[in-house]
Amino acid sequence: MFYETGRNASVGEENTVYIGQKPTMNYVLAVVTQFNNGCSEVTIKARGRAISRAVDVAEIVRHRFIQEAAVRDIKIETEVLKGEGGSTANVSSIEIYMSR
Amino acid sequence: MFYETGRNASVGEENTVYIGQKPTMNYVLAVVTQFNNGCSEVTIKARGRAISRAVDVAEIVRHRFIQEAAVRDIKIETEVLKGEGGSTANVSSIEIYMSR
Repeated sequence: MFYETGRNASVGEENTVYIGQKPTMNYVLAVVTQFNNGCSEVTIKARGRAISRAVDVAEIVRHRFIQEAAVRDIKIETEVLKGEGGSTANVSSIEIYMSR
Repeated sequence: MFYETGRNASVGEENTVYIGQKPTMNYVLAVVTQFNNGCSEVTIKARGRAISRAVDVAEIVRHRFIQEAAVRDIKIETEVLKGEGGSTANVSSIEIYMSR
């Protein structure tokens, strides 16, 4: 699932944090927590307008909280969303791979 | 200069297209024009909320207009803007390097 479900920033399998519409610092905390729990790699994913927030999260994490964290790679792609009645919509997405 | 000035999407030196608040297709056209004029590399730059639009532009260019264009690299960073009176604000930025 791409969309978050809980009250807090959602953390999926494989140390992935999905960026939604919550305050940026919620997601920063989620990423920092993953690193502090011993993860050496955390992936930040977002699509549509949340892409800008995903970049903010990565930048805040590495500048303010975990200086030794680095952006290892960034990928962008297009996801095709299928609506009811067979209509489709394209939405851009980003994946930011961070490692410490 | 980072901000665009003209009526159309702005194209700076070094085959760079700066993404602002105009319709996405303005910037797509600017990038496609650069490639069609013989450029083998075009850089798309944006900051703040325009980052999402920059990703849209890159994806539309390579999927719909120039299939042989590829995203060679993506960089994100933080720019420090200085306001009057010495205040500063951090803003995230993205650079998407496309080549054909």
